[in-house]
Amino acid sequence: MAVKQTARTRSGRRRGRADGAAPESLRKVNYRQLRNPFPAMAVFSEDQAEDMHQSALYILEDLGMRVLLPEARAIFAQSGARVDGEMVFVGRDIVAAALASAPKSIPCRAGARDRDVVMELGNLVFQAGAGAPHATDLVRGRRPGSASDYIEYLQLTQHFDVFHMISPQVEPQDVPTHLRHYFTTEAQLTWSDKFPFTFARGTPQVMDCFEMIRNYRGVSDDAFRAHPHTYTIINTNSPRTLDIPMAQGLIDFARHGQMSIVTPFTLMGAMAPITVAGAVTLSHAEALLAITLTQLVQPGAPVCYGTFTSNVDMKSGAPAFGTPSHFQASLAAGQMARKIGLPWRSAAGSASNINDVQAANENQMGLWGCLMAGATVVIHAAGWLEGGLSVSYEKLITDAEVLNMIAELCAGAEAGPEDIGYDTAIGEVAPQGHFFAASQTMARYNTQFYEPIVHDYANFGTWSERGARDANTRATDVWQDIVARKAQPGLDRDRLAALQSYTAKRTAEGGAPPES
Amino acid sequence: MAVKQTARTRSGRRRGRADGAAPESLRKVNYRQLRNPFPAMAVFSEDQAEDMHQSALYILEDLGMRVLLPEARAIFAQSGARVDGEMVFVGRDIVAAALASAPKSIPCRAGARDRDVVMELGNLVFQAGAGAPHATDLVRGRRPGSASDYIEYLQLTQHFDVFHMISPQVEPQDVPTHLRHYFTTEAQLTWSDKFPFTFARGTPQVMDCFEMIRNYRGVSDDAFRAHPHTYTIINTNSPRTLDIPMAQGLIDFARHGQMSIVTPFTLMGAMAPITVAGAVTLSHAEALLAITLTQLVQPGAPVCYGTFTSNVDMKSGAPAFGTPSHFQASLAAGQMARKIGLPWRSAAGSASNINDVQAANENQMGLWGCLMAGATVVIHAAGWLEGGLSVSYEKLITDAEVLNMIAELCAGAEAGPEDIGYDTAIGEVAPQGHFFAASQTMARYNTQFYEPIVHDYANFGTWSERGARDANTRATDVWQDIVARKAQPGLDRDRLAALQSYTAKRTAEGGAPPES
Repeated sequence: MAVKQTARTRSGRRRGRADGAAPESLRKVNYRQLRNPFPAMAVFSEDQAEDMHQSALYILEDLGMRVLLPEARAIFAQSGARVDGEMVFVGRDIVAAALASAPKSIPCRAGARDRDVVMELGNLVFQAGAGAPHATDLVRGRRPGSASDYIEYLQLTQHFDVFHMISPQVEPQDVPTHLRHYFTTEAQLTWSDKFPFTFARGTPQVMDCFEMIRNYRGVSDDAFRAHPHTYTIINTNSPRTLDIPMAQGLIDFARHGQMSIVTPFTLMGAMAPITVAGAVTLSHAEALLAITLTQLVQPGAPVCYGTFTSNVDMKSGAPAFGTPSHFQASLAAGQMARKIGLPWRSAAGSASNINDVQAANENQMGLWGCLMAGATVVIHAAGWLEGGLSVSYEKLITDAEVLNMIAELCAGAEAGPEDIGYDTAIGEVAPQGHFFAASQTMARYNTQFYEPIVHDYANFGTWSERGARDANTRATDVWQDIVARKAQPGLDRDRLAALQSYTAKRTAEGGAPPES
Repeated sequence: MAVKQTARTRSGRRRGRADGAAPESLRKVNYRQLRNPFPAMAVFSEDQAEDMHQSALYILEDLGMRVLLPEARAIFAQSGARVDGEMVFVGRDIVAAALASAPKSIPCRAGARDRDVVMELGNLVFQAGAGAPHATDLVRGRRPGSASDYIEYLQLTQHFDVFHMISPQVEPQDVPTHLRHYFTTEAQLTWSDKFPFTFARGTPQVMDCFEMIRNYRGVSDDAFRAHPHTYTIINTNSPRTLDIPMAQGLIDFARHGQMSIVTPFTLMGAMAPITVAGAVTLSHAEALLAITLTQLVQPGAPVCYGTFTSNVDMKSGAPAFGTPSHFQASLAAGQMARKIGLPWRSAAGSASNINDVQAANENQMGLWGCLMAGATVVIHAAGWLEGGLSVSYEKLITDAEVLNMIAELCAGAEAGPEDIGYDTAIGEVAPQGHFFAASQTMARYNTQFYEPIVHDYANFGTWSERGARDANTRATDVWQDIVARKAQPGLDRDRLAALQSYTAKRTAEGGAPPES
């Protein structure tokens, strides 16, 4: 594939000048739809991977899984699965039928067609760090997440094309829980045109969110059911438990044609076996049960496989991320995903408490595990600290730099005659000459190279004169500039008014508390 | 391959406790001999790669290369190459014969057999950041490199098994240039037992170094010639120039059976074409000429292929590292190396002025390019800042953490029945239970996971109480502890005395100034 100009604009690649005008890069590369160019890596042999898959099937058949929602147990029982109290035992034939009906390619509808994402093996989709109770930045420090933080974080992730879906972001803790889903859904629809997220916190909230999205996007019930217009993330309660809101979410999203991403989140040595093989086998079993539930509800319902498995520090019990075990677990999950053929999610992330060198190294190490595992969606690809207890504005920027560079690698490079430049470059320049004025250079100098967001190539003297500011300090400038722009790419004022009156009506009716 | 205990000890994985005693990890993984487990990635098609190779051969035949050393030109002329003034034009048959005689596997002799490294495609060898005029750390700041810095840096790189060869390190600028090679050779032999480096700064210095190594290692002339006991790095003067000391180095090392690593260092848009394809084609041509010279001197002489190609920032002309173009150039060089079948070097590195998030991200991005390119030796894999103008003690530590994790990935993982743990873990733990006390966990808890050097998994509260110290600050503790130990694994007191009297004699004789 060529590194060449495309029709789409890569936004937000340069930070604003002192006068506020952001110089537009002449280089145009499509960061919005990516294919993974990295060769898939396996950590286990094919035989070993098959043993893990078979072990997972035995887990579902013989050890069973605890399913807390009676409706879900009834659905399993109806399919022929054995149900004993809260325990559900699912035979491999039922699982096989579910895997056969689950779609291998899922077109997801965002607010604009060039923001649509297709979930299938081979595609590469990034999400910013998600689900954090706290936000942090160098200006205001670490604090409980607020509505204001939620919107700012949304502005930042909207700004960079390389974030392809809206993540669960930061929790707006200052919004009452029975009204919070109105706030987050309105914010997503009006501050972004990307594919939005809906928490599975009980049917009433989910139905509210579906209605808001349907109305704001202007799609009929049938069109809404035909393609996912939102998605949720389903975590099992490892080991071997599916709780009420998660089971309800799987059922509700499947019934309405919306997408569930099934992701057991396990830490080796804590809620999963201490080994990569054991942890991924357990996670695989749990994911298969959840996927099966969606297909029993509605064959063909859009569902993604997934895992997020890392290890604890065995000295302290603390979670660790970006470790060799985390990397290998991603590779193992990729082997399982290719076996069942479904799109799937994995995750990067960091255990560091601030955006320091540890945070950068852990996040990138975790990211490479996902890339080489062939993950379809990489969650927590940017901004995630403390194992998810906070998201950092500066880290979002510095990680976006890495993701942009990955997107550049997705675009590839060419080595045709004009690229080699035997006549237009190599032959033009005498020994020990320079290429600054070669024909090839003159034709390409302002489009050839990736232009960084925050990386600084000034030499030590110049950099010192400019204040010796590190990447984090420069990242503060970048996010402040983006937040100050107050861009609302999703805004439709008429529909916003309708959205607000819906929220007012539902608020007056008492809202919808989360269920558990 | 199994993550299991091996006979060799991985040293220096844990920083010392407050009482000075370093707890020894129970986990033992061999970091000293690595095979690259990552699938090779190509950036160009096979046809395009072949076009680049053919273009390089045309460059050598038709455009020629400027060779400044008369002896080298005479060697080329004798082989049948056309020589016109300083320009040398080498036909493809001469190149083909050289590539046929160059060894595909090179066993290199260090000071101890378990420190030996074998240079061949598929092996993975790391070097610390090299050749810097300045050193920097958080305690003493940035300063011109000194003899003291040279020894400290050597202590640090010796300490970590994951650095497999001694690099050119930091320049001891307070040692006079006509005596500097005595100092650096003595330091390498007595403070390390790893494979040492010799600068090609003229025959007199090189012969001095060879004699010192031969005598200190206690090997005969024949044994010395039979296998490399030291190596040098040969940079061409791109474009298309081979200068006097570099040509002389190629000749001297080949004649004595010592290893040259041929590495054109080019920046796309400056001393090479602005494209990856053009820059790597030019670099490939230059490397082929240098490799050919070694084989004309001595067929079978140990020589490695290599490239170090990144881009400049076209706005400022400043060098950039860890960029998408740098990554792609490594991939392209890997395609060239596989085409000719020789072991080869690539490089990571950073343009950042301090060890900040930019530095971490650039270095790791560059590193992954090398890993996926299948590089045999990765130079500047740790500690390198400012595009090589300084090496940072803290960065050496934080990058060593990344390299250790890569070494762990080289060890792989297993998924046999005991690893999956259907009976000893998964079946033992009830739904929503925990695995801390499972049989499998109890059997493995103190050997299962990589234990970090400097990464900290404490939660925000604990970390804050402990002083909220970032990874760099903690890295300072690590290097200070290592330097304070004053370990000299290469020390043989009798041979040291002989070494010192040799230096005294040669100093009295006037030493050996560098030649150029």
